Amino acid sequence: MSDFHDAAKGGLSAAQLEAVLRQVGAERYHNLHPFHHLMVSGALSKGQMQAWALNRYCYQAVIPRKDAMILARAEDPAFRAEWRKRIEDHDGEDGWSGGIAKWLKLATGLGLDANDVIGERLALPATRFAVGAYLAFCTNRTLLEAVASSLTELFSPVIIGERVPAMLAKYDYVTEDTLAYFKARPEQASRDAQFALSYALKHADTPERQQAVIDALVFKCDILWAMLDALMQAYGEAGHIPPGAFRPEDRK
Amino acid sequence: MSDFHDAAKGGLSAAQLEAVLRQVGAERYHNLHPFHHLMVSGALSKGQMQAWALNRYCYQAVIPRKDAMILARAEDPAFRAEWRKRIEDHDGEDGWSGGIAKWLKLATGLGLDANDVIGERLALPATRFAVGAYLAFCTNRTLLEAVASSLTELFSPVIIGERVPAMLAKYDYVTEDTLAYFKARPEQASRDAQFALSYALKHADTPERQQAVIDALVFKCDILWAMLDALMQAYGEAGHIPPGAFRPEDRK
Repeated sequence: MSDFHDAAKGGLSAAQLEAVLRQVGAERYHNLHPFHHLMVSGALSKGQMQAWALNRYCYQAVIPRKDAMILARAEDPAFRAEWRKRIEDHDGEDGWSGGIAKWLKLATGLGLDANDVIGERLALPATRFAVGAYLAFCTNRTLLEAVASSLTELFSPVIIGERVPAMLAKYDYVTEDTLAYFKARPEQASRDAQFALSYALKHADTPERQQAVIDALVFKCDILWAMLDALMQAYGEAGHIPPGAFRPEDRK
Repeated sequence: MSDFHDAAKGGLSAAQLEAVLRQVGAERYHNLHPFHHLMVSGALSKGQMQAWALNRYCYQAVIPRKDAMILARAEDPAFRAEWRKRIEDHDGEDGWSGGIAKWLKLATGLGLDANDVIGERLALPATRFAVGAYLAFCTNRTLLEAVASSLTELFSPVIIGERVPAMLAKYDYVTEDTLAYFKARPEQASRDAQFALSYALKHADTPERQQAVIDALVFKCDILWAMLDALMQAYGEAGHIPPGAFRPEDRK
């Protein structure tokens, strides 16, 4: 396991930097997390699946806000016009016809109450802290780092490709309609990731900036990983639900 | 279990508000967490004890920064003069003779390398996210809420009173010298908590502000709880250490 702390020492070519970034994904992306393995093996209880959807909603809901923060910090109109598509994808025409609405549909399709999901009060505090850290990162770090932190999307088509067929095959209460969110995502994510990758490779023009780009992607992998860790701790077999958080029917 | 979301509905007297705040502590403070129970029962491995000290250092290190943020937002010189004592307690005369230095001594007394502790790189990402959320809360919320979030100190003499005798009795590698941090804390915490409580009771003069004070204390309890949750998930019996985090000798 690499720690990536000195990965850009001495400077990297663009191809080398891209290879390091892909290595970060190969070692740190949350498709390697035990919770994902449980999900694709069909081993999650319905309550665990609900907890996943409910908590992940907090992440989905903050995505267009962190993208708006990136937009607010970008001086290049062409960059903004490209990045703006992300916000449109998540919010849709009227706020409730894009990715967030589709995630809500996923959550309610699993039997959750829409207000419970949107209210976020039943989410794990650890989820909120991780999501808050992501928004703060895109607010406080350089634009280059904020852009680089989105590069987990390079790997999302893979995890979606594992998740969707497994969810349909192994959980009889999951339908194609419930999973509508994932239909558009691989194409959107690939488009967005290519743009962000080109930007990062072009603008990371010193070893320090290259390292900052690598660190940003590690940070983002930590966010996604910590969200699944929190689910395992709360809802795993030996789990212990924190005070005030969602309690599935089978754990009331 | 109360959820405290409507605890101030209709308005509370100062005595009633204080009672609700104490009830938050009775239901949500981290002396109720399984990790604390393991610690005081003598059941922690040395590696688990090290992980606790290493991660908790991140929290200790941010305390004077969140207190400085509160100072920066306080307009009343008398308030600032009182609150300033907290920073002095943690940083000491020269930065390394107060509470942070004593916590570092605790960590190195448990066999950790000082640079590993100070560097914070081996801490759990979830710890960093929780600590960051605390600093952000004191930065972005009202001064009243920031003050109220410190009220967990009302309960800290109790947890220290449980922790210190148990650590000395049940772990042969723990000495009084190692635990010097805790010697001054109960008195400091009581002084600070009384001041903060008086301030909160006085300034929470509408039901909305009373609810905000209660929510702030719930939030802070969530922070402390989430830090122990993260330790359990990473270093508990069925634990799974996230990529890049501290690996105790017995788990390399």
